[in-house]
Amino acid sequence: MELWFSEEHTDHTRLSFRVEKVLASVYSKYQRIDVLETPDWGKVLLLDGKVMLTEKDEFIYHEMITHPSLFIHPAPQRILIIGGGDGGTVREITRHKKVKEIDLCEIDEAVIEVSRRFLPHLSEKLSERRVKIYLEDGEKFINEKKNHYDIIIIDSTDPSEVSQGLFTAEFYEVVSNSLHEEGILIVQSESVINNPQLVKDIYWNIEKSFPHTYLYWAPIPTYPGGIWTFTMGSKKYSPVKDLLLDYWESFKPELRYYNPSVHRAAFALPNFVEQELSLKNETLL
Amino acid sequence: MELWFSEEHTDHTRLSFRVEKVLASVYSKYQRIDVLETPDWGKVLLLDGKVMLTEKDEFIYHEMITHPSLFIHPAPQRILIIGGGDGGTVREITRHKKVKEIDLCEIDEAVIEVSRRFLPHLSEKLSERRVKIYLEDGEKFINEKKNHYDIIIIDSTDPSEVSQGLFTAEFYEVVSNSLHEEGILIVQSESVINNPQLVKDIYWNIEKSFPHTYLYWAPIPTYPGGIWTFTMGSKKYSPVKDLLLDYWESFKPELRYYNPSVHRAAFALPNFVEQELSLKNETLL
Repeated sequence: MELWFSEEHTDHTRLSFRVEKVLASVYSKYQRIDVLETPDWGKVLLLDGKVMLTEKDEFIYHEMITHPSLFIHPAPQRILIIGGGDGGTVREITRHKKVKEIDLCEIDEAVIEVSRRFLPHLSEKLSERRVKIYLEDGEKFINEKKNHYDIIIIDSTDPSEVSQGLFTAEFYEVVSNSLHEEGILIVQSESVINNPQLVKDIYWNIEKSFPHTYLYWAPIPTYPGGIWTFTMGSKKYSPVKDLLLDYWESFKPELRYYNPSVHRAAFALPNFVEQELSLKNETLL
Repeated sequence: MELWFSEEHTDHTRLSFRVEKVLASVYSKYQRIDVLETPDWGKVLLLDGKVMLTEKDEFIYHEMITHPSLFIHPAPQRILIIGGGDGGTVREITRHKKVKEIDLCEIDEAVIEVSRRFLPHLSEKLSERRVKIYLEDGEKFINEKKNHYDIIIIDSTDPSEVSQGLFTAEFYEVVSNSLHEEGILIVQSESVINNPQLVKDIYWNIEKSFPHTYLYWAPIPTYPGGIWTFTMGSKKYSPVKDLLLDYWESFKPELRYYNPSVHRAAFALPNFVEQELSLKNETLL
């Protein structure tokens, strides 16, 4: 038997992986969750049929959604992640001893359970002593936290019925109020190839509530369009001027993608990105 | 009727595009050539069933195989392209008035004919006065050119029966002899995700004949693995120290991907790339 999984990146483009085994298929209150074993990409986590991560390339996404802010904020004591129930983002943050508290607000407990069972390399740090898990709606959770966090990371799915509130200007304003005055917001902000209008909307929605907004990107082979963006809303720190090189040298974590050169490079935007989004990162390189 | 094209990126991963129309299917002396019309990617050129370019993302590949060398060599008068019959690489080079002669050595005339007919946006500059086309075997052609070119670009297919000679240490030594003493070689050097061993072999084969070797990369959504590499063998110029910012300011070409920040960023290598290839680009950022 030939077993193949296909994700419809658009109505007209599909990426397909051969499947050795379907390890799990769960319907939670919010979504369908599947874990596939594949020869090329290792285990693959799907939410509603979309690839959330593969074991082979998840390091790029998780290192790049976390370390750029952690290597510019000198004292990030409290960090909030909204989404990210697989644990990959938590895993990267726990590398930083300077972080005191990591709150994970994941609406769907089943994602955490599936990851704990099938993806230990991602979920193992969810049990670390600094990590607190809140099984709540991110929008509601954050409303009660004023001036509380140093870094907030929105590690959500694509906009959907459940997650669409996490992409609005109103939400980013609430996030801004939850951050300390030197705080940083990081949002996974979608594909500039497949969905430039969405990337643009996120950027300009964040820009309404933050004095400095920066787009950065990383190549993620199994995500639609391949060129994936992150948007940083920053109250004070600049991603290149404030890069903490001494801190990097002091503990040089064993990472597979991120290093200080890659950090700077990620903020160098191709012309078409700046043009389609009508933005220009402050001169960085 | 639903018409879909699939490329097998590996035995276990496929990328598929919906096809509106098959515009051409030709068997040349060397290979099968197809041109598809697709809703997502525009016209797609295939050689032996592999995507050589799509109208939507070819600008990334063609700008990045050309401009990094043209913005560090101060006086590149004669340039040779081996392969590249579609004309995209020629198109980018012709933006540079400082270039006097562009030789294109393409073994398969049918590629040029198909591109002239179906891909005018790529092939239009093949008729420019500085361009000479040689329908010859690249390995033989270059043997007769000693100390002749300033830049040589290997814009080949993946290693195949026809092209495998273009990836050997022996060939790169001949190329080195064909270059002036300040010359630069640029090679499209494959995917670091799908074929890191091949990327590594190319790098170290070039390194045997050039005093300086640099790897750089660009994200190309429709190429296998998405993260594509180029390798530069340079006799003198360094890609960051010698970047010609004044020259950039003097004519700022209307490019969609390349700019001086992107240039520097392209040489910033993720850790896994340096590790898998056992290399380190000279400190650049």
